[in-house]
Amino acid sequence: MTGAEYIVEFLRQRGSKNFFLVQGGACAFIIDAIGRNKEVDYFCFNHEQSTAMAADACWRVNKTVGVTVATSGPGATNLITGIACSYFDSIPSIHITGQVNKSESSEFIGANVRQTGFQETKIVEMVKPITKYAVQVNSIDELKKELIKAYNIAISHRMGPVLIDVPMNIQKEEAGDVIEYFAEQDRSIASEIDGFALTKKQVQAFLTDAKRPMVLFGAGIGLSGAEAQVMRFIEQHQLPFVSSWNGISFFDHDSAGYCGQIGVYGNRGANFILQNCDALLVLGSRLDNRQRSGNSKSFASDAKVLVVDVDVEELKKYRSESNFSAIALDLSNFSKVFGGIEVAKFDAAWLPYVEEMKVKYFGKEVSTYAEKNNTLSPYLAVKKLNSIMENDAVVIGDTGATVCWVYQSFHRTKQNLFTSGGNSPMGYALPAAIGAKITDHSKQVICMIGDGGFQMNIQELQTVVQNKLDIKIVVFNNAGYGIIKQFQDSYFDSRYFATGEGYGVPDFEKIAYSYGIDYIKITDVNQLTKETFSKSSAVLIDLIIDTNTLIEPKLEMGRPIHDQFPYISDVDFKSANRFVNYKRLR
Amino acid sequence: MTGAEYIVEFLRQRGSKNFFLVQGGACAFIIDAIGRNKEVDYFCFNHEQSTAMAADACWRVNKTVGVTVATSGPGATNLITGIACSYFDSIPSIHITGQVNKSESSEFIGANVRQTGFQETKIVEMVKPITKYAVQVNSIDELKKELIKAYNIAISHRMGPVLIDVPMNIQKEEAGDVIEYFAEQDRSIASEIDGFALTKKQVQAFLTDAKRPMVLFGAGIGLSGAEAQVMRFIEQHQLPFVSSWNGISFFDHDSAGYCGQIGVYGNRGANFILQNCDALLVLGSRLDNRQRSGNSKSFASDAKVLVVDVDVEELKKYRSESNFSAIALDLSNFSKVFGGIEVAKFDAAWLPYVEEMKVKYFGKEVSTYAEKNNTLSPYLAVKKLNSIMENDAVVIGDTGATVCWVYQSFHRTKQNLFTSGGNSPMGYALPAAIGAKITDHSKQVICMIGDGGFQMNIQELQTVVQNKLDIKIVVFNNAGYGIIKQFQDSYFDSRYFATGEGYGVPDFEKIAYSYGIDYIKITDVNQLTKETFSKSSAVLIDLIIDTNTLIEPKLEMGRPIHDQFPYISDVDFKSANRFVNYKRLR
Repeated sequence: MTGAEYIVEFLRQRGSKNFFLVQGGACAFIIDAIGRNKEVDYFCFNHEQSTAMAADACWRVNKTVGVTVATSGPGATNLITGIACSYFDSIPSIHITGQVNKSESSEFIGANVRQTGFQETKIVEMVKPITKYAVQVNSIDELKKELIKAYNIAISHRMGPVLIDVPMNIQKEEAGDVIEYFAEQDRSIASEIDGFALTKKQVQAFLTDAKRPMVLFGAGIGLSGAEAQVMRFIEQHQLPFVSSWNGISFFDHDSAGYCGQIGVYGNRGANFILQNCDALLVLGSRLDNRQRSGNSKSFASDAKVLVVDVDVEELKKYRSESNFSAIALDLSNFSKVFGGIEVAKFDAAWLPYVEEMKVKYFGKEVSTYAEKNNTLSPYLAVKKLNSIMENDAVVIGDTGATVCWVYQSFHRTKQNLFTSGGNSPMGYALPAAIGAKITDHSKQVICMIGDGGFQMNIQELQTVVQNKLDIKIVVFNNAGYGIIKQFQDSYFDSRYFATGEGYGVPDFEKIAYSYGIDYIKITDVNQLTKETFSKSSAVLIDLIIDTNTLIEPKLEMGRPIHDQFPYISDVDFKSANRFVNYKRLR
Repeated sequence: MTGAEYIVEFLRQRGSKNFFLVQGGACAFIIDAIGRNKEVDYFCFNHEQSTAMAADACWRVNKTVGVTVATSGPGATNLITGIACSYFDSIPSIHITGQVNKSESSEFIGANVRQTGFQETKIVEMVKPITKYAVQVNSIDELKKELIKAYNIAISHRMGPVLIDVPMNIQKEEAGDVIEYFAEQDRSIASEIDGFALTKKQVQAFLTDAKRPMVLFGAGIGLSGAEAQVMRFIEQHQLPFVSSWNGISFFDHDSAGYCGQIGVYGNRGANFILQNCDALLVLGSRLDNRQRSGNSKSFASDAKVLVVDVDVEELKKYRSESNFSAIALDLSNFSKVFGGIEVAKFDAAWLPYVEEMKVKYFGKEVSTYAEKNNTLSPYLAVKKLNSIMENDAVVIGDTGATVCWVYQSFHRTKQNLFTSGGNSPMGYALPAAIGAKITDHSKQVICMIGDGGFQMNIQELQTVVQNKLDIKIVVFNNAGYGIIKQFQDSYFDSRYFATGEGYGVPDFEKIAYSYGIDYIKITDVNQLTKETFSKSSAVLIDLIIDTNTLIEPKLEMGRPIHDQFPYISDVDFKSANRFVNYKRLR
């Protein structure tokens, strides 16, 4: 077995049987080994960026670790934006890059030059800030050890992407058999630090005085597989809860306690409830600024906040915030800590208020712009799409206005809804949909993407056709960068430089035709029917949205999350914030 | 003036008036400043990668420093592959990235987390290995100083790309007027080290004994603007010369002394002459492995080699090679050193041999595959394209088999022919053509690209149409990754994994139509006429090339450059290597 064959066999034995790749000189030996291994498959993409985005989607779909193979230099650097998606969202993925023969490298020659071998690039150094681990291997022994090490790092604790750079000479060398090694995820952080008993005491102390408690769901619940444990606790204590975007797919939105998604683009009611609670339990969320707003001190400022996270470094962020406390815990151990916890009697007005806010705001997002101008409302479109898709569909949101519209109005029951939350690159959703479909052919896969994002990786339509993938591409086509236009409305007197002016969109009907993909133009929500998704081949669904359609609600800079645009009346504001004494900015 | 306005005005004053960009939240203030400045223009691309490739082309076309503006996170990381093009080929370019407000950054919060602000990414750290200088500015004062510093670094000594990361709060801050500062390139390396007199002595010593001298042209000749000085020296002494790929555009190929391009894909005759010389003077070339071959010791092994380079680090590579000596010199000072140098009397057989090789091999590349199979020969196609284009056209080669075919058979007189030599990413030529056309509208711009490379950045067809750029896109469509297929022929028994099998090409006629671009299909070289390039709008010229068409000649692994595939007879081999006693590998 050569080094190249070893890599393929190692990954196959761990369940990663689909290799996403673009050919190239420095990875040709690995790809030949993949092609010759009858138990794995490879998929040719048309840009390496897309392979990494597709690999990111694998784990999100069915917890298989996605794999890319790329050549040195531009092949490797093209992966970077996709790898960053996995890093910021704690998704395990493995990236194998070919590298020039060691004898042709700058290091070997001992000169500090820009490049020695053809397309030689210091990829390991470059990806350090966006990988959990990255290493170049310089012997077969290193290759074997580092594969195990990197794989385990990727899937342990707070997960993330890893990269292994393999010089051509190592790919060709004789490697021997695959080392017998059973990778075990190490889930012992909490017990190492405190022991569960101590942690339990902290949680109990936090909840003993809570009169208006609230739980915030983060991605950590799903990443650790703690969905059922957490939901049992929620239901047992009748706790109201809200969700971050990356937490949104790990429970049924019909759950009695669920009040909506929060943050800058959050549901108004969910934001009000959160801002009015006196005890906020955060489970597996890093509370980024799209949740807390740029003015982070204004978030839950009247509450005690207890953050539970697997990553101790994330918890250090709260050292200077007097109302915050923190627990390092892998949520897979949730019940060990939260089982038997007693929750204090709520303030009698709390649940009625929660219910009132929910009745008034939950699922009530509307486009006042579309209503006024009689154009297609993206909110109504998402609701309609939601109703016509399969119950267990995989739905991927891209970025910009589109992902806001989707996350604001999607009602998740059993679907798998995800996006690249922290990195949020334009163009993620199409290659992610490809990766999702390859990983689980049985699922209906729907990508929801804006015209700007769609153009970014439009070359992958060829990959869709080449592999006969029946994904549904819904383009929210507002012929502009909607989210930035709204920013330009607020701060630049609606000067639409490079969002409307200078930016253009091709005719997607012709593009679809040229790739041999079915096309449906939607100008009215009622044109969306069960049949829209019924084809057993790829379909491009072009939603024609007026270019000035807004995200509603949306926070403007400097505001707290309980005061979103468009602004509600002072009476409604006061009623919604009845437990606290928030002053309104003018 | 705000920080954002300052950046725009600073660059405008230095002659960079075209900003290549994609909009985004963290660079919106800079783009608003660009839009409001009446003396500059911006151009919206559909992927940041392309903006950096287009910026790379600017300097190559007319010595203006190309500029990109990108947002934080994916906007910035998408630039990386394009920036690397500039780095490896010593091209100055400036990249301005927006970054999250300092108050929202991980650094400010003092936690070692993956990300704090939305799309926060450590771009400065990531691009260090592919930039000459990269810095984040954290005050207006730093912004002003670092702009000057970075700009000067970009254009001085061995040039290269620089990146300045600008947090949003700095973009908004009051900045005052642009500092009066006249950037001067510092061209004093040689005098700092030795003084020209000493250098001259070295050169004289090297040439005193030379009986079979030869000069190798590198990119440094053009980068330093030394074309005329060098050519005067060549002509004065009737020296034969060859060229690296990046040196190929800085002289007239009709020059009496020119013998062809060398290397792995070099002209056979040029390779023979180089391998038979006894004194090789290398001017501004880093002698990468596509010139010397992987087996670099076999390059000019019978000659003394004197390498002249501006970058002292490059020269250190030769410390262990006993036949090499080196001089650190910026070639803009070429005449100060080489003026008055005496060249020894040549071996009487040398120039007749050179002429014999030239007659036999120069410009004689043929596709034996195409001849045998009666298919379109890429060599004949390049020659025909060469003859029908304008005299001063800008011609950009992509990578893979296409760039080999182009560089093997293009005869440059006054055209500007370039490629991304060291990085050589698939998809470079299309955005580079866009950058070239924007930088000099008066020139005919022709991009020569394979089907694989074309797909990589196909989204930029929209940029071509949006900006009404009349570039000519010649696709060498062999429906596969030709250069790797040839590698697979040699080493993998023609198993075409991921080059033919699993890889597909859309119908480019339909693609062109869908973007509103004219299309011409070429199945016979005679269909190429003056009219092919006569349209005043963009045209896609689809050259249908058989998928198994080879690069001829091409070096196989482990061989020296005087023994290329397809292999010539032993008699011809011996005759071509008459001055040396090279043994042939079997």
